[in-house]
Parts: sequence; C-alpha cells; structure tokens
Amino acid sequence: MPEVLIVGDESEHYCELLGAMALPEWHCRYLNAPVRGAEAYRDVEVLFGPPDLLLQSLPYCNSVKWVQSSWAGVAPLTQAPRRDYTLTGVKGIFGGPMREYVLGWMLALERNIPSRSQARSWQYSVDGSLNGKSMGIMGTGSIGCAVAQAAKGFGLKVRGLNSDGRLVDGFDACFESGSAVAFADGLDYLVALLPATNATAGLINNGVFEALNPGALFLNAGRANCVVMTDLQSSLTSGKLRAAVLDVLECEPLPAGDPLWALENLYITSHTAAPTQASAVVAVFAENYLRFVAGEPLLHQVHFERGY
Amino acid sequence: MPEVLIVGDESEHYCELLGAMALPEWHCRYLNAPVRGAEAYRDVEVLFGPPDLLLQSLPYCNSVKWVQSSWAGVAPLTQAPRRDYTLTGVKGIFGGPMREYVLGWMLALERNIPSRSQARSWQYSVDGSLNGKSMGIMGTGSIGCAVAQAAKGFGLKVRGLNSDGRLVDGFDACFESGSAVAFADGLDYLVALLPATNATAGLINNGVFEALNPGALFLNAGRANCVVMTDLQSSLTSGKLRAAVLDVLECEPLPAGDPLWALENLYITSHTAAPTQASAVVAVFAENYLRFVAGEPLLHQVHFERGY
Repeated sequence: MPEVLIVGDESEHYCELLGAMALPEWHCRYLNAPVRGAEAYRDVEVLFGPPDLLLQSLPYCNSVKWVQSSWAGVAPLTQAPRRDYTLTGVKGIFGGPMREYVLGWMLALERNIPSRSQARSWQYSVDGSLNGKSMGIMGTGSIGCAVAQAAKGFGLKVRGLNSDGRLVDGFDACFESGSAVAFADGLDYLVALLPATNATAGLINNGVFEALNPGALFLNAGRANCVVMTDLQSSLTSGKLRAAVLDVLECEPLPAGDPLWALENLYITSHTAAPTQASAVVAVFAENYLRFVAGEPLLHQVHFERGY
Repeated sequence: MPEVLIVGDESEHYCELLGAMALPEWHCRYLNAPVRGAEAYRDVEVLFGPPDLLLQSLPYCNSVKWVQSSWAGVAPLTQAPRRDYTLTGVKGIFGGPMREYVLGWMLALERNIPSRSQARSWQYSVDGSLNGKSMGIMGTGSIGCAVAQAAKGFGLKVRGLNSDGRLVDGFDACFESGSAVAFADGLDYLVALLPATNATAGLINNGVFEALNPGALFLNAGRANCVVMTDLQSSLTSGKLRAAVLDVLECEPLPAGDPLWALENLYITSHTAAPTQASAVVAVFAENYLRFVAGEPLLHQVHFERGY
C-alpha cells in the first residue's frame, strides 16, 4: 500500500474523487498547502499536486518514488536540482480548451467581435477571414496538434516548430527551434504553446516579429519565458503586429496598474486559456497509479533535462 | 451572342472581371442602378445582379431567359409573380465565411471575449466551452453543412432542420420544419441559416425558445423573417436565452435609436456574416454562362415555389 500525499487547494476534492474510484491498495492523505517539518510527509512515496507546491514539499520526502504534477507545466520541478524520482505531467486534456481559446481569439479579432459587441449603430464593413492564411504553432505536442487540427478546419495553412524539426502529423511543415525566423517568415498568425525550458527562453523576439507578415497576430497560451516583452511591446506600438493575446505573464497576476493593461492592441486573458479540470487530472493520476502499483512504466513521464 | 446585362453597384467591376476570362461569344452591358424605360434593357437575355435590383429591371426585359442572382438570398424574385425564366442563385461560396462567423461568435461568448477584451485588471474565472454541448442548425444546405463540419471539430453534437427531415451528411440527426420544437429540445446553441420563404416565416418563436436549454445562445445569420422578434426580446430579457447574435433584421440598416441596440445580451452584426466576394460570385456566373451558351442545365437553379 503506497503512501500517497496530495497537496494544494484542491487536494481534498482530489482525494474524494479518487476514493470513489475503487483503486487497489488505495490510501491517501492531503495537505491544503505545504507545511514545514517532516512529520506530515512521513513515508510518502507518491506526491500529487501543483508543481510549485510539490517543490516545497520535496525536501521533506526522502522516500518519494513518483511525483505527478497536476499542471501541464512542470518547470518548478525540472529547474530544481533533485532528480531521484519519476516525474509525470498531465497531457492530452488541454487540447480541447486550448483549441477553443486560440481559434476563438483568432476568429474574434478577424471578425472584429470586440468592437462589434459594443456597437450601438449599424456598422457595415467587410471583416477579415482565416481562410487561406498561414499560421505557425510553436510546440507540436498534444496541445499544438489539437490546435493545428482545428485551424485546418478553417482553411489555414499550419506550420509547426519543435526541438528538432521532426514533421508531426497535422502540420504542413515543421521547423527546429534554432530556425525560428525561417519558421516565422510570412506567417499571419503566430501561436506559442511552449513549455518553459532553457531552449524556449527568449525564443520570440524582434527577429521573429520582423519575419511575420505585416499586421500579424501573436498569441501566447503556453509559458511566458519564451517572449522578449520589450520586443513584443515595440512590435505592438509600431503596428508591425496588429494585436497580441497573452494568457501568461512572468508575473501573475499582473498588477492592475501595469502599463501593459493600457496597450490597446494587447489582450490579457488572466491564465484562463486551458483551466485544469479536476475530473480529468484525477483520471490521469488514477491511470498512472494503476501502473505504479503494477510496476509498469508510467505515462507522460517528463525528461528533466529536456524540461517536458 | 447572348445579350448580357449586369446591374448594381459592382456591375462595372463584374464586367471587367468577366471580360478578362476569355468567355466564348462574350459581350456585356452594365447599369449601376435600374433605370426606367425599355431602352437600356433592349434584347437582354441574361440578367446578373442583386435580386432586389433585378426585380425592378425585369418588367423591361421581355426576352430574358436566365437571371443570375449575385446573392445567396433570392426572395425578392421568388416572391414576385413572374416565373418565365430560369433563376439561379449563388451557392457554395458562403460556407467559409459563415463557419467563421458562427463559430467565432459562439467561442467568443463562451470564452467571454467581449468582456475579456476590455479587461484592465486580472480576471481569473473559468470560461465556458463548446465541448460535448448540443447545437441545432436550421438549414442544411451548403452553408449549414459547412457550419456543422466546423462545429463537429470542437466536439459539438449537431442536429439539422430542413423542409422534410431528410438526414444530411455531417448531422447527427435531422428534423422537418414542422417539428421545430422537438428539434430545439435541449439545445445549447440554436443557429438559423434559413432562406426567406413562406415555410420559414415565424418558425422561431416562444415555443422554440422555451424548448432550448436554459442559458442557450441563439444566432441568426440567414434571413430575418424566421424570427418572431417580440418572442426573442422577451426570451432575452427574462434570461431564458443567455444572448443572441443577429446578423439580419427585417429593417436594414437598423436605425441608431432603435431599442434593440440597448439590449445588453443582443449583439447585432450589421449583415456582415458572409460578405459577397466579387471574384467568387463572378466565378459562379462564368460557370453558368458557359453552360448557358452550350445549352446545358444551369447550376444552383432556384425553385420558385420552394423559394431556394
């Protein structure tokens, strides 16, 4: 019977959901927030929760074997030195909400929905369209693939960018991360869905923005570290970019007085693109738990060096 | 060499585009607007333009054989008594813009884009989603099919409504127009893409709105005659409907002071859903022209009685 500890705001809820699943040898404890001292962590072999909180718990967990993140992003753990356990992420559940977010904003901006939703008189003008335009998606994992598939349904041409340029199903072409400028050349839409790793830091800068088509749109719904913010701001104020939509920022929540809020062509969506659904995260944990007790390889294992 | 007359704002532009296509026996005249008197219409066999203007031109055209509408909607002509010519519409070119309009507004309202686009501070809350919800599309022609296909890409279940309830590819089920309440039962999204005919007049009324799920969204991007406006207004003010998006109204342009503009959960988009693209309309005319001179059956023929 492995000792399982669930940490975080939702830990009690996760315990209840898992308790109802009739898992073999099941037994778990929970902590709403990390505590100091080893007592609460005695004999823990399995940790489950948000990676920032797990990072605070790890020093007290000497016998931990498996850590399941409840987020897609695992940077707090991969950037820490300790690596004597198996780290698993959550994959395959964010594609649905992310394709709605990305296509929703692209369509809304092309069809002028922010201004049409405020109209108080007849405003006839021909809106824009996605059809036949070019989109580039940075990140070709399960989320990027889901977005690419939805984009194809609207007649977009879709390029991908990943670590080694391997061609992934659903993309017309793929580029390696060292060729970000060639990848960006002539794009109408640039969408970043990247994990936070050393390789992605600062990847989206003036060189990339300059390569886009004039009036391109930029969306970031991955992690914030890939964007050079001063370059983004100058591309927005110069009009090189028509608009940008940021779901993520280095500092969250962004303070109310921050000058970014005042940029008219920057839309900030408060990290709402792909909310974590408890039932889906718990299902990922439960499947891996069955593998753990059976001694089978876990799903969604994270490579510490690669960072995802 | 058939005498072709093109009527309307864009008639000169259409003439130029067609003149560059090397059509056989090609010769055409144009009128920016209908004129009084038979002189301008002498010997015309082929008329091409917006149906409301063609209706004014028809009385002077005694030898007309074929009338090509430049709009999808042909009600001005089908509701007139004269039927001694072949009437063709424009089909197959509005599916692309219409799927962007319908899915764009559905996603924008689920993801709260009208309010998020105005945010000046961090607003974390979990937005809605299309995934797994039910949509009903009134009208299962080429436009309805394009919208249904795009909707399926977001995990929606999609019902159709048409004149006889025949099952159309891409819909999970179809209902006949006499069963509009059964069709509407339990829908989260109701989308009207209907032509203006006697059979569609007033089809969307309190009975239909009451059958929808609480908080459903209603979109009309077809013709206005299908909606009982007083019933729509009461469903919006009671909250039975969460919101409605109307691209079409009986009176267009809607005057600036009209009380409809003040309804907070009604979005009026000024007949912009699927703008006519000159190149696409001209391509439809050109293909039919080749058939006309070859004595072959024309495409997209309209049945006067049915109205589409």
